Amino acid sequence: MNELKTDILIIGGGPAGMMTGITAAQFAPHKQVLVIRPETDAVIPCGIPYIFGTLGGTDEDMAGRAPLLAAGGKIQIGRIQSVDRKARTAVLDSGDIIHWERLVLATGAENFIPPISGTQLEGVFSIQKDYQYLDALFSKVVPQIKTLAIIGGGFIGVEFADEIRKRGIQVHIIEMLPHLMQAAFDLDACEAVEKQLQKQGIQIHTNARVEALLPDSTGKRVAQVQISGKDPLSVDGVLIAIGVRPNVHLAQEMGLTLSRSGGIWVDAYQRSREDPAIFAVGDCAHKQDFFTRKANHALIASQAAAEGRIAGMNLYGLRELRHSAGSVSVYASEIDGLAFGVAGLTQHQAETEGFPILIGESRLPDHHPASMPNTTEIYCRVIFSAESLQLLGGQILGGATTGELVNTIGLAVQMRATAPDLASMQFGSQPRLTPSLHPLIAATGDALQRHFAQSHPCVN
Amino acid sequence: MNELKTDILIIGGGPAGMMTGITAAQFAPHKQVLVIRPETDAVIPCGIPYIFGTLGGTDEDMAGRAPLLAAGGKIQIGRIQSVDRKARTAVLDSGDIIHWERLVLATGAENFIPPISGTQLEGVFSIQKDYQYLDALFSKVVPQIKTLAIIGGGFIGVEFADEIRKRGIQVHIIEMLPHLMQAAFDLDACEAVEKQLQKQGIQIHTNARVEALLPDSTGKRVAQVQISGKDPLSVDGVLIAIGVRPNVHLAQEMGLTLSRSGGIWVDAYQRSREDPAIFAVGDCAHKQDFFTRKANHALIASQAAAEGRIAGMNLYGLRELRHSAGSVSVYASEIDGLAFGVAGLTQHQAETEGFPILIGESRLPDHHPASMPNTTEIYCRVIFSAESLQLLGGQILGGATTGELVNTIGLAVQMRATAPDLASMQFGSQPRLTPSLHPLIAATGDALQRHFAQSHPCVN
Repeated sequence: MNELKTDILIIGGGPAGMMTGITAAQFAPHKQVLVIRPETDAVIPCGIPYIFGTLGGTDEDMAGRAPLLAAGGKIQIGRIQSVDRKARTAVLDSGDIIHWERLVLATGAENFIPPISGTQLEGVFSIQKDYQYLDALFSKVVPQIKTLAIIGGGFIGVEFADEIRKRGIQVHIIEMLPHLMQAAFDLDACEAVEKQLQKQGIQIHTNARVEALLPDSTGKRVAQVQISGKDPLSVDGVLIAIGVRPNVHLAQEMGLTLSRSGGIWVDAYQRSREDPAIFAVGDCAHKQDFFTRKANHALIASQAAAEGRIAGMNLYGLRELRHSAGSVSVYASEIDGLAFGVAGLTQHQAETEGFPILIGESRLPDHHPASMPNTTEIYCRVIFSAESLQLLGGQILGGATTGELVNTIGLAVQMRATAPDLASMQFGSQPRLTPSLHPLIAATGDALQRHFAQSHPCVN
Repeated sequence: MNELKTDILIIGGGPAGMMTGITAAQFAPHKQVLVIRPETDAVIPCGIPYIFGTLGGTDEDMAGRAPLLAAGGKIQIGRIQSVDRKARTAVLDSGDIIHWERLVLATGAENFIPPISGTQLEGVFSIQKDYQYLDALFSKVVPQIKTLAIIGGGFIGVEFADEIRKRGIQVHIIEMLPHLMQAAFDLDACEAVEKQLQKQGIQIHTNARVEALLPDSTGKRVAQVQISGKDPLSVDGVLIAIGVRPNVHLAQEMGLTLSRSGGIWVDAYQRSREDPAIFAVGDCAHKQDFFTRKANHALIASQAAAEGRIAGMNLYGLRELRHSAGSVSVYASEIDGLAFGVAGLTQHQAETEGFPILIGESRLPDHHPASMPNTTEIYCRVIFSAESLQLLGGQILGGATTGELVNTIGLAVQMRATAPDLASMQFGSQPRLTPSLHPLIAATGDALQRHFAQSHPCVN
């Protein structure tokens, strides 16, 4: 047993932990930064589905340590068994004790496995953000599968389906709700995604509740998925991808307050309720929605990294004021050339929250003239508060620029842009790179036109 | 001679005029909108260079009338000879008189032809935004050219060079300044563009002042470009692309006030000084820079369209407050896979204006992991005011998303985002669509780190 010392101890080496470490090492260069994580080799979380298709291997999705080391931080492989808040120490599985000044919990999330029978059978798996696990999955489990059922039609399920079908595997997606992606998108986008998947031969089962996973004659390996009120599906593999939950085991043992969402309670600077020297970032930390102040369940890498930046800058005093009021969902993905993305509230979410809303739409080619090569249509829908005309969110169906268009909408939401702000905004346009008119501006113009027609029907 | 009547008369059918017409027809549906323009068939201005390469023909770059007609506007081909402000009438070249309630000047710009000898020779041309002119250029003039000199190394010159070399034409670019694109970009971007053009076999002559264009033995056709202090270049074609000037002939005859920039003086709603019923939009109208309030010479289609939207919404009273404080340069282009863009002030411009500045940089692959297909590096530089930390501008060298990244920076500039705003901003990331970290956020982090190290050197 050794006694070690660091200034900043970060538990967990995913996007939140690594970004906290990098930022802390940059902003407090005289402080020692140590990241402890169990994974010898970490992977890039959002790249995981692509291991099984586009990338063709786990080695292509490694998350490097280089940025942390370059910034002056250190990394050590291990598991923290316990933390003594008073003594400001942590105990490793090796028995070593680490003394710290600032502690950052970045313990991530764990897959939610539904309480049904058969989830322990061979051929049933979920996604773990661990190189060794994924590599075994890629090289041993997946090659034995001919027909795969994916339980859960969210981002992971949809992306994994489109990748793994490229290996010649027959894929079924099973979703409890009436549509895939329904938690994140409005119906038109969900339907476009479903169509695109079906074109690839993927079979979609919606309004479908899984009752049990049934074994083959040996009793060991999964052979059927039993769905309420429907014929059972014959499969030889099942991916469970119905969501994740904050991993707060250590935080609970430490006696830290959790929020209603199940994540560790944090203030705007990611500090715990109990001790301003103890922080939490990423999937294990509570997030509140930018607009509603309710729990926001955006357990995604970009949000985790954003929190890591905030914590990293402010470990030793509030060096950078936090200017963001909370979490904004900013998501995008692509299935076989159809990209789809969302920032802020969807129309459905805004209506459910009770916001009176104003909608605007635009359809434009993503290059101009539309005769330029590789031109795809961009559909944009924006949602404004009908009262204040503040931008609440927007959705894009488009091509290669969809991710950055959604980021522009995300920035506009977070800067509290209004429809008049956007209507008088100047954007660039170039034939090879963009539409002639920015989709966000065109959709805003449409919204203002509807607004004006409603508010002043008699003005001519 | 007929007497006609319209509510809104728009003179000019380029991006500014058409956008004014479309917006006016949408926001004032009971008013008649009439656009008068000389071109039977208009082209998309920023698409012009691509006619000569990628598009392979003028017919592929037509600007449709459909959006104007769909909105309820009308278009008529002709030239306005004179305007009587008092009588509120305009006279067409046909002799017809048009009565109007609101008049919008969208007369565009004309090419600046330098006062040197030989510009009238055969084989010497400039770019006119007119279908018949361009079609003759494409089908008659260009096929006779083996060696082309382009005078002017701005966007038009550079894009035209890269397109026309695809026809097997040997291209020279002649630029007076030490670098191509120098008015718009900092040196590193200029040098990257020069390298990319040279890789395509294009010859670049910088610090080169053209003294005269010399004829061949017949005295009719251009044969040489005489450059100060250098050997003459043998050519059989010359494109003059050294810039444009506001076309204000009609405005001057009408007695409207011009600004120091040479454009028609307009207020924030594009109204003339003399008469709130007379507007000017686009290249013919004065623009003031967002930061410096000096004349901004961004005579580009996206700016013109932005002004058209403002005017179109506010012809009959200030229905939409203008929220933008002035013109922000937002430009992008691409040469053979290298895209480059800028929004707001460059480092050089900011320093020249006397702003104490803070710089930040980032380099990231545009997909993640970098092993994803078609991955290009994105270089981002951001410039903040060192005093207020307000974002002054940014530049991108990258791939297919460069145009939209520059638009995001442009939005951040216009929303007056500060470095702390951006540092706590949330963005989305997705392997196929974006970097793992937004280039603007990464560069902002770099800037803040430098700022913190300078401001608080002793904090550890």
